[in-house]
Amino acid sequence: METPYRWLRRPGRAPALAYGADYNPEQWPRSTWDADIRAMNAAGVTIVSLAIFSWARLEPAEGEYDFGWLDEVMDLLHAGGIAVDLATATASPPPWLTARHPEILPVDVHGATVWPGGRQHWRPTSPVFRAHALRLVRAMAGRYGGHPALAAWHVSNELGCHNVYDYSDDAAAAFRTWLTERYGDLDALNAAWGTAFWSQHYSNWAQILPPRQAATHPNPTQQLDFKRFSSDALKDHLRAERDVLRELTPDVPVTTNFMVMGEQKPMDYADWAAEVDFVANDHYVQRGPRAQDELSFSANLTGHIAGRRPWFLMEHSTSAVNWQPINVPKKPGELARDSLTHVAHGADAVCFFQWRQSRAGAEKYHSAMLPHAGVDSEVFRSVAELGATLRRLAPVAGTARTRARAAILFDWTSWWASEQDSHPTDRLRYRREALDWYSAFLDLGVRADVLPAGQDFSGYDLVVAPVLHVVPAALAERLRAYVAAGGHLVTTYFSGIVDEHDHVWLDGYPGPLRDLLGIRIEEFAPLGDDERAELDNGLTGTLWTDAVTVTGADVEVLASYKGGAPAITRRTVGTGSAAYVSTRLGPDGLAPVLRDLLDRAGVPGELPAELRGRVELAVRGDFRFLINRTAEPVELAGVAGEVLHGTPGRLEPRGVTVLRHPA
Amino acid sequence: METPYRWLRRPGRAPALAYGADYNPEQWPRSTWDADIRAMNAAGVTIVSLAIFSWARLEPAEGEYDFGWLDEVMDLLHAGGIAVDLATATASPPPWLTARHPEILPVDVHGATVWPGGRQHWRPTSPVFRAHALRLVRAMAGRYGGHPALAAWHVSNELGCHNVYDYSDDAAAAFRTWLTERYGDLDALNAAWGTAFWSQHYSNWAQILPPRQAATHPNPTQQLDFKRFSSDALKDHLRAERDVLRELTPDVPVTTNFMVMGEQKPMDYADWAAEVDFVANDHYVQRGPRAQDELSFSANLTGHIAGRRPWFLMEHSTSAVNWQPINVPKKPGELARDSLTHVAHGADAVCFFQWRQSRAGAEKYHSAMLPHAGVDSEVFRSVAELGATLRRLAPVAGTARTRARAAILFDWTSWWASEQDSHPTDRLRYRREALDWYSAFLDLGVRADVLPAGQDFSGYDLVVAPVLHVVPAALAERLRAYVAAGGHLVTTYFSGIVDEHDHVWLDGYPGPLRDLLGIRIEEFAPLGDDERAELDNGLTGTLWTDAVTVTGADVEVLASYKGGAPAITRRTVGTGSAAYVSTRLGPDGLAPVLRDLLDRAGVPGELPAELRGRVELAVRGDFRFLINRTAEPVELAGVAGEVLHGTPGRLEPRGVTVLRHPA
Amino acid sequence: METPYRWLRRPGRAPALAYGADYNPEQWPRSTWDADIRAMNAAGVTIVSLAIFSWARLEPAEGEYDFGWLDEVMDLLHAGGIAVDLATATASPPPWLTARHPEILPVDVHGATVWPGGRQHWRPTSPVFRAHALRLVRAMAGRYGGHPALAAWHVSNELGCHNVYDYSDDAAAAFRTWLTERYGDLDALNAAWGTAFWSQHYSNWAQILPPRQAATHPNPTQQLDFKRFSSDALKDHLRAERDVLRELTPDVPVTTNFMVMGEQKPMDYADWAAEVDFVANDHYVQRGPRAQDELSFSANLTGHIAGRRPWFLMEHSTSAVNWQPINVPKKPGELARDSLTHVAHGADAVCFFQWRQSRAGAEKYHSAMLPHAGVDSEVFRSVAELGATLRRLAPVAGTARTRARAAILFDWTSWWASEQDSHPTDRLRYRREALDWYSAFLDLGVRADVLPAGQDFSGYDLVVAPVLHVVPAALAERLRAYVAAGGHLVTTYFSGIVDEHDHVWLDGYPGPLRDLLGIRIEEFAPLGDDERAELDNGLTGTLWTDAVTVTGADVEVLASYKGGAPAITRRTVGTGSAAYVSTRLGPDGLAPVLRDLLDRAGVPGELPAELRGRVELAVRGDFRFLINRTAEPVELAGVAGEVLHGTPGRLEPRGVTVLRHPA
Repeated sequence: METPYRWLRRPGRAPALAYGADYNPEQWPRSTWDADIRAMNAAGVTIVSLAIFSWARLEPAEGEYDFGWLDEVMDLLHAGGIAVDLATATASPPPWLTARHPEILPVDVHGATVWPGGRQHWRPTSPVFRAHALRLVRAMAGRYGGHPALAAWHVSNELGCHNVYDYSDDAAAAFRTWLTERYGDLDALNAAWGTAFWSQHYSNWAQILPPRQAATHPNPTQQLDFKRFSSDALKDHLRAERDVLRELTPDVPVTTNFMVMGEQKPMDYADWAAEVDFVANDHYVQRGPRAQDELSFSANLTGHIAGRRPWFLMEHSTSAVNWQPINVPKKPGELARDSLTHVAHGADAVCFFQWRQSRAGAEKYHSAMLPHAGVDSEVFRSVAELGATLRRLAPVAGTARTRARAAILFDWTSWWASEQDSHPTDRLRYRREALDWYSAFLDLGVRADVLPAGQDFSGYDLVVAPVLHVVPAALAERLRAYVAAGGHLVTTYFSGIVDEHDHVWLDGYPGPLRDLLGIRIEEFAPLGDDERAELDNGLTGTLWTDAVTVTGADVEVLASYKGGAPAITRRTVGTGSAAYVSTRLGPDGLAPVLRDLLDRAGVPGELPAELRGRVELAVRGDFRFLINRTAEPVELAGVAGEVLHGTPGRLEPRGVTVLRHPA
Repeated sequence: METPYRWLRRPGRAPALAYGADYNPEQWPRSTWDADIRAMNAAGVTIVSLAIFSWARLEPAEGEYDFGWLDEVMDLLHAGGIAVDLATATASPPPWLTARHPEILPVDVHGATVWPGGRQHWRPTSPVFRAHALRLVRAMAGRYGGHPALAAWHVSNELGCHNVYDYSDDAAAAFRTWLTERYGDLDALNAAWGTAFWSQHYSNWAQILPPRQAATHPNPTQQLDFKRFSSDALKDHLRAERDVLRELTPDVPVTTNFMVMGEQKPMDYADWAAEVDFVANDHYVQRGPRAQDELSFSANLTGHIAGRRPWFLMEHSTSAVNWQPINVPKKPGELARDSLTHVAHGADAVCFFQWRQSRAGAEKYHSAMLPHAGVDSEVFRSVAELGATLRRLAPVAGTARTRARAAILFDWTSWWASEQDSHPTDRLRYRREALDWYSAFLDLGVRADVLPAGQDFSGYDLVVAPVLHVVPAALAERLRAYVAAGGHLVTTYFSGIVDEHDHVWLDGYPGPLRDLLGIRIEEFAPLGDDERAELDNGLTGTLWTDAVTVTGADVEVLASYKGGAPAITRRTVGTGSAAYVSTRLGPDGLAPVLRDLLDRAGVPGELPAELRGRVELAVRGDFRFLINRTAEPVELAGVAGEVLHGTPGRLEPRGVTVLRHPA
Repeated sequence: METPYRWLRRPGRAPALAYGADYNPEQWPRSTWDADIRAMNAAGVTIVSLAIFSWARLEPAEGEYDFGWLDEVMDLLHAGGIAVDLATATASPPPWLTARHPEILPVDVHGATVWPGGRQHWRPTSPVFRAHALRLVRAMAGRYGGHPALAAWHVSNELGCHNVYDYSDDAAAAFRTWLTERYGDLDALNAAWGTAFWSQHYSNWAQILPPRQAATHPNPTQQLDFKRFSSDALKDHLRAERDVLRELTPDVPVTTNFMVMGEQKPMDYADWAAEVDFVANDHYVQRGPRAQDELSFSANLTGHIAGRRPWFLMEHSTSAVNWQPINVPKKPGELARDSLTHVAHGADAVCFFQWRQSRAGAEKYHSAMLPHAGVDSEVFRSVAELGATLRRLAPVAGTARTRARAAILFDWTSWWASEQDSHPTDRLRYRREALDWYSAFLDLGVRADVLPAGQDFSGYDLVVAPVLHVVPAALAERLRAYVAAGGHLVTTYFSGIVDEHDHVWLDGYPGPLRDLLGIRIEEFAPLGDDERAELDNGLTGTLWTDAVTVTGADVEVLASYKGGAPAITRRTVGTGSAAYVSTRLGPDGLAPVLRDLLDRAGVPGELPAELRGRVELAVRGDFRFLINRTAEPVELAGVAGEVLHGTPGRLEPRGVTVLRHPA
């Protein structure tokens, strides 16, 4: 497999895993820079991201540039053998720009201006901002396109982290243009939005607005389309910067750092991936009982957004972050384990925010490779140790993810739609549900790929589609065809409820999946926070139940509610099947259900029985990554292969062992 | 008693209970309409509300009308034998209107615009909105005033559900006009508002504003008057539409749907009732331990707002709603029980929101008579069964509520005032307190009327006035006269504290009731959330206590706090009495207290002892409704009468039995 | 010691403790005023604050004055022997002013206007407001400067209670001016604010704004400087009014009422104190387990803000307030105990808000000296009794606080900075931490002074500096010198972290105190809400832990975490020491730690062992105040002295005994 990363292919260098961080030398006196390069070399750093927030420094006044300091930093890095992922520096507009053009500032849902003071205070749709940003991009490309340190372009930074939902008049105008392209004419829009409801019929495009603060729940399709539009508006900005770069530096790959993590849901990265030359991602661990599973889930999903090709971990943290209510440091071993889990799922670059911990500013309590305490610190020693590990793992570089036999479908549209207001319950969390299934796979020791729903899933033996709420006709047909071809489909409550316009499929839920599943539901029965649904197999459901009627032949009721109504069903369809889980069971409850479904589908685990649940397995080409999910050591008897990293025969607490397959 | 409902008096038809729903045919293709009529007939539907949100469809551009589709629907319904409660269609302004006249959009307390997207985004006081609305009303009346299907006019819809508190400049101007009428001159206003406090003296009417976001608690009388004004401003809109209708169609009764339910407190419906030809109400059950009692309480209060005459249940739900955090479906039996409880309290029409469940829009997960699942559904079968039941209950139609011997006073002004800020506790909930007493009556099996405080209560044996906070001199005099004439008054903490301007009555609480009750209180002593007040009769108080001193003769201390201070007192006044309860006891604690007070007042229960608490009794004319308050069957031995509905001798779980009095 | 209070020095009168309240006669009819004077005399009132909110009454139209009523009140009071603390009456602008000049209304962080309706709706930096206010001050001074009742000027009222943070354009302009004075040039500001971070470099002063609503956390130094500026902006208003008064009435002392209490943190009163002729304070008790300690802490701190000289308690409450969620009345004894605790800590005047409880307005449920119930009330009887007590305590008047041997440092800058966003935890509360230590002192029966950090602490044997977060180089030097001279310093986690610009001190925490303490910390380890850190001495930490490394000689580990890491350390430095506590222990946990540190420092308690913890001791000159911290009587055996107030030999429940030292 060809890797697009130029720094892995630089003359005289063998392929390797890249290692580094955001580097912000402008925050430090010149005297620090040489020490930085020395310490980077000591730590094994091979690449840094540069100039992310340097606009005000690079363009101190409109059209006037000060590149001298950056020239020097680029040269120093190059001399030090360190490549550069160079930002277009447009992430945060400088004060002179917002002072002169306050009309680029976003407007919130209540109509209030979002002022400077933080970062990313720009309207994605502002033509004024766009013009200023592209002028800078052009200047950067012109200045550094030929620099030998330049490895890749980094467009803006974490696009949409704070400014994705803008309700300004610029946004309104752009929303109308987007809607015109989507619907062609107003009749189609009125039909799609169901404007016959609540007297919302539009007779002129100019009447359409973003879903600003309203008297009560705004039109749900308007809301859903505004989510689609807002993702697209930022994607359009990405494309605009990229197009300038491709015009001026066609040989330099372009990326931007996605945020596939936690509840970051506004950007449909499965849709964005086609716009970049390689996928990059930022990931931060959030405290909680399944935090490690969430990291694996995110890395896994990133790998599939990237089409299974290697991707670039642009940011994660060496220890604590600064933006959670309580920010705890990482425990011994976690720094390396977190990084290597990303590598296990396809990362060919391991980078942190940031190189040197800031003294000032909003992120000064965010950990870094070089902490406040300096090189004489546990963090820096662990960082250097990880650098050595990554060098040892160089053979892994460039290998693709190896497909699993099972997959979990993940769909941004269902995420957006299933959590809208005015629903049977406001407690449902789409991504948590997908993560529950993923944890159940991990607990069983069975690999599962987390796959954007738009990708081809026909090759999997078993596909789980949790809360696949939005099922347009074409997706329903794909699912039917999958089962007809012998696939084993598992889906859950609140799946197959609406079409792409958020219109309910009629005549019994789940409309387009009813016949496939052989069931029919007349009413949803969500549960109160203090309510539980007991199943006859000893499991307990929360959040939701359905009153399921079995309507098809060949449907087996795998579990029933106390009282007798079906809770989990499975219809046999030739050699395939279609199963339905009507309540929330959580990871622990899902594990036995999934075990049974996997057995019936003939999908075995790939780990020795005694490792299942305690160890996560990930496979890239010839390499197997065994990741300790516990804080205890695990004996690795029964696992064959050359040890590339790790103690032979033993998986350290919070440790990772990398094996090369026996020939 | 004459009923104002024209459809009950249509030639060739006997009086009957009406049955139906909101009907929104414009949301569906023409092909659906014939199936709708057939299914309505199958379900026993006799009336529908039409055109509630049809403004954008009926007037697609300013002054241009498209009535063709509505003509056809009206004709189809008439041909199908179904009457129409026709909306004036002004509930939600169309996009062309708000786009051309954004100055009709409400402004919230923070100064932010309330934009279109939901519904009811109009300022009650906007002259521009008013002109456009009345033009449409005039057009509707002209077009359909003579249509044979027309049974009544339905002004706007749920007036004030979302737009009652508007802080715009239009509202400011109208508020000043309203205040000019109320106070005549500024001296009176300054005195009433107590503007000597905090330097708020007004020297010009133009200085007066709505209580917009302030630095700290705004003037409480300003707040109270703004609540009064806001209720009146919407009433004024109701009157304006009604006056057009009366001018053009003097023979067609006019109504609008009130929202007597839960915490819907901004509209003083006791005051509004005089403006409509018959009272209509919307009621939705909210989850909770006393939800059924709340329904009964609301229906009871609606019946008294209607002057004991029959009223029209304009909306309730067949099953789940969509706007609560968690929306659960109704259990078997609840659909009919809820409907018949309204009938028991005087409803002569049973209507739902809505006929056919929407596919799109903010209310698509709100249940309907014809659910997403279609006619082959439990909901539709229950709906049709209820239709048959209502036909059997036709003799009930037109009968008045039969007065109980006890009453609970309910007062919007006290509701508004007692829950304002800067009070001894912010935990007090006025309506919950009234509902507690109502539940205690139900638990004892004794009927109680829920009576607006402005109505005549002299005929009752016992009157409970919970938290009657605002007691102007005239009301104090009415209460004194009631007791002097032998009545038994019961009141509670935080009653009789202020006059109509929210000025405290001096020299000891409760000022104007002090002598009547024979007690005096110097300080309130609210309780923390974790505090309890133990009484010597084994009861436990929460929320509040008073340091009560007995000052009058003939005062008996019925219960004391541990420590000895009086908790519950009762003063004998001739053959009457005046009792005081100084803490919150909740329904369970109030029951024995009320039992004792009823005994002393000589008010017996009307149910056999074994039914009390388990069964609610309601009486209309010759008809007795027995409503099962439990989920268990109840034997009805000892209850005489002809069974109009229900199983003889047995009250089904969640069931209702209707008996005709033995001659 | 000379007291600045003119009423204590009036001809023919011996020094005395003043007693009184805010008096608002304009809220009452003229007929009430004579009764007021009589009741004041009965209660022992000697001073009232007048005209606090009288602007609208005194200046009914721009430049037109109505002083007649106030002339009469002043004369009546003087005739009644009651002195007047006369307000400048500028606290709340009248409606005519805000109607004509809405540009004086504050703007909140979201850009929304703060409208009239409450009080204090003015921008501290508005030149228009300033001009109007000073015109009134000039008029007041001219009219009443020579009145014989006039004892002091009271500038505005509770400056900053509601309007301290204003984000208007006036504030922006004033902020720029303030920054220009602070930094001189933009380079210095850019360096101090760390604007290299997130592209925030300013190239023009006009680009700088208050930290208005931003897309994410605004620049922390911008936030910190805005807090400094906002405190200074109000101080500037205070000075402007004061300068007018000093010009016109140089002999009349000027004050304003501070709010040293609870979480009132925006005004740096230690900095403000120099601007007034004597310090006045308002204090209200907030419910909670350490409420009495908080009162003592606040009074103690006020006494040190006042430089140990007597101060004026301008407001507290006789019983309940109106602005907490639940407002409970005071228990028997609390009224006097609370007042006398303030006297014990240096108050020479005991005043309440307010004299006569209002009938109307936002504070009508706030208790007063003369409650709604009138003179025939427990509250009024207690008030009169306290008046008599204060007369008995006249010898105390004018005495200074007697210095303790221990002190707690309190620092507004650390308060502001340590609670900013993006920190290791958002649970840290600076003042609570200081209060924990204070409670520990009280529990041990050892007096501690609560000292602004800017004051000289060299004379104390032991100084505790809890969460002394901001340590500029000069403060670090003062602390080092203190220890070098034999002082015993105790500090805690998150101390010594940043300099005055909120820039982190590098190379290991706590930078400038590292060598002094002999420890080094690489990472903070805050605890989750459900996490606990067990210590080997049986104590339990919450909120925070540090990974402490002992780096210095002569460092003793006083307690370790389970696992072995140091939790509490103490370095011996000559005859002095420097101790560090790395976790939150709460008052109960701190007591044994402090006991040990006091023993090592040789600081004994001044109370007999059996009184320690149960009794608070405070000393003014020759007088010792013993305050019962419990609701039980305490035997006073072993305490010598002449009893000025209290039962000999016995401290009543919630009682106070005042003794004169034996000669």
